[in-house]
Amino acid sequence: MALIVQKYGGTSVGSVERIDVVADKLIKAHQDGNQVVVVVSAMSGETNRLVALAQDVADQPSPRELDVLLSTGEQVTIALLSMALERRGQPARSYTGGQVHILTDSAHNKARIRDIDGSKMQTDLDAGRIVVVAGFQGVDEDGNITTLGRGGSDTTAVALAAALKADECQIFTDVDGVYTTDPRVEPRARRMQRITFEEMLEMASLGSKVLQIRAVEFAHKYSVPLRVLSSFEEGPGTLITDEDSEMEQPLISGIAFNRDEAKLTCLGVPDQPGVAYRILGAIADANIEVDMIIQNVSEDAINDFTFTVHRSDYARALELLQQKAEELGAKEVLGDDTIVKLSLVGVGMRSHAGIASTMFQALAKEGINIRLISTSEIKISVVIDEKYLELGVRTLHEAFDLAEDS
Amino acid sequence: MALIVQKYGGTSVGSVERIDVVADKLIKAHQDGNQVVVVVSAMSGETNRLVALAQDVADQPSPRELDVLLSTGEQVTIALLSMALERRGQPARSYTGGQVHILTDSAHNKARIRDIDGSKMQTDLDAGRIVVVAGFQGVDEDGNITTLGRGGSDTTAVALAAALKADECQIFTDVDGVYTTDPRVEPRARRMQRITFEEMLEMASLGSKVLQIRAVEFAHKYSVPLRVLSSFEEGPGTLITDEDSEMEQPLISGIAFNRDEAKLTCLGVPDQPGVAYRILGAIADANIEVDMIIQNVSEDAINDFTFTVHRSDYARALELLQQKAEELGAKEVLGDDTIVKLSLVGVGMRSHAGIASTMFQALAKEGINIRLISTSEIKISVVIDEKYLELGVRTLHEAFDLAEDS
Repeated sequence: MALIVQKYGGTSVGSVERIDVVADKLIKAHQDGNQVVVVVSAMSGETNRLVALAQDVADQPSPRELDVLLSTGEQVTIALLSMALERRGQPARSYTGGQVHILTDSAHNKARIRDIDGSKMQTDLDAGRIVVVAGFQGVDEDGNITTLGRGGSDTTAVALAAALKADECQIFTDVDGVYTTDPRVEPRARRMQRITFEEMLEMASLGSKVLQIRAVEFAHKYSVPLRVLSSFEEGPGTLITDEDSEMEQPLISGIAFNRDEAKLTCLGVPDQPGVAYRILGAIADANIEVDMIIQNVSEDAINDFTFTVHRSDYARALELLQQKAEELGAKEVLGDDTIVKLSLVGVGMRSHAGIASTMFQALAKEGINIRLISTSEIKISVVIDEKYLELGVRTLHEAFDLAEDS
Repeated sequence: MALIVQKYGGTSVGSVERIDVVADKLIKAHQDGNQVVVVVSAMSGETNRLVALAQDVADQPSPRELDVLLSTGEQVTIALLSMALERRGQPARSYTGGQVHILTDSAHNKARIRDIDGSKMQTDLDAGRIVVVAGFQGVDEDGNITTLGRGGSDTTAVALAAALKADECQIFTDVDGVYTTDPRVEPRARRMQRITFEEMLEMASLGSKVLQIRAVEFAHKYSVPLRVLSSFEEGPGTLITDEDSEMEQPLISGIAFNRDEAKLTCLGVPDQPGVAYRILGAIADANIEVDMIIQNVSEDAINDFTFTVHRSDYARALELLQQKAEELGAKEVLGDDTIVKLSLVGVGMRSHAGIASTMFQALAKEGINIRLISTSEIKISVVIDEKYLELGVRTLHEAFDLAEDS
């Protein structure tokens, strides 16, 4: 008998009809001989409704009270789903985060899980019940209600799976798995059967928004096999696991991209200790997140320093950089917010040379100019003009033979 | 420094604007030098919305899950009210029933409070915070969420007041106090400044639906001074307390009435032990609540037996009584569902003779025929034809000098 944790997001439980569908799926999993724990989000629209109520009352509601308010969203869903299960004759029991002691730190609105007491749930499972747990929420040591922030329900599911030593954590979403790239850009994109945690982290952070990074990290840390699959269609989805020596690694798993980038360059920066810090410190102080950072020596004791930010932060970042450049006596500041980032991801590239050159060659053949290059162990990212995004993705998809029939 | 518990019902917190009004009232009470705990209900309409959701999912949702669902209603209100207080610079902290350990039995949907841990609230109060508690809810020993059933928020307020040894428990409603009778029937009805618990219980059970009986009983048991006052107007309201020897008791406090009564009579019942039981047992088995019960000996070894029920149960009760009458060999069954009950209430009547005769005389003078009479220590009830209700109320109001200017 396997123990599985399933998680359904807000869209999957967005109406009474959809809750009925989820109940049927859960009962099927239970009848297949599994012990089943299910984590649910607030019904779609509910969180926004609650946030709007809060903002009618106070411009800046306190984080503690916002958590008290928002946590009711999932509580409604767990009750309704349990009722739907019971109506079908399936014993079930709902729990809020606090009721199963999902202990978090006290960072309201973005709390991190510290511990979970699985004993109560295990008792229910052993009694044949389906256990229905509110995602996204917990309690701190003083019993205050906390929420985990964006994507928190995925994290709850993974944490429960870890605490209960589940055989698999299944995240049901509106896509049927993780693809080699975005099918809207490359219709020949292929659903992957398996992918490693490392690859998934690179794919997710680069804009393949299937799973929250945090949940993937958590699953990785506790080696919880994670499966992404569709709430609306049958299918095996994509399994995300530790690297498996028995499984032959493809060179490249997929191609991620990010349309929302802008790049800024400071030319002719004096090559002195602390310069990078003085530039990026100002950017960080303005709460602007930096993605890629590249520094090149161009001439004697003079550097070119480039970084990318989210496009919405471009104007502010440019202004700050211009100030800094003057202070530092830099030569010139350049900026471009019509660029995109394209990344090849694959654990296989670790042990294979020549991936980068194949990539650059393929792009060059199509006349796509590479503005920036940055690499990690399992990823090669390039920045190109945004008009070449689709062409770039399709070119690489073909160059690395990722299509459906391969 | 006094400690007061205030309670606001669903109408009083039915919108963001009304929550703002409540916040202002609370801050005023706090600035007047009081420590303030506030109990709130779900925003009006919210509980109905949740019940409708549940019924879309299951015809008969389980009581446990219904409690999980319904308890979110008050949780939304406590968060919003705390935000409104904080926005005004007033430190506040919200608590669900479970968070302040409102321990109940496990009778979901109609749980009874067993214990409350006031220590956390006292710490907050001593730190200058207003404590905002969700009414209507608690947890059982296993940590399951329970609700107290209808009028539960009044009960929560009284129970908190008892646990915290509050100086007063103030119930804010849509009326500005308890009146000598219903002002819609007798415009000269007067708001009482004080009334005893016993009188309030008689007034409440007779249809003056200002406070839930259960909350009054609870307040009586723990001697918590209870004040009913308006959410929407200024004013001292009505104080409900133990009988105070220093306070001069008026003969009569008020006149209650009940329009929803029907009476049934079984004539010529054999005078044998167990007959009353056999008649009322059948009625009770059908879950019909009986109000007045009157038995008179009419002839040798033959009784007349009369009782009243809610008008909606009249047809069913009549049918059952006819069956029983046949079994018992009774002479005849009579019924009337065009009657009302009128009651004089007052602790003062205990020590004064002549109240009943004044009452009967006043009614007779107006040609109002009395069908039934029933008395208790602090109450005289009569059943009359429903067409005389308004005339009867006004006649007694005048006969006992209850009007505004008296």
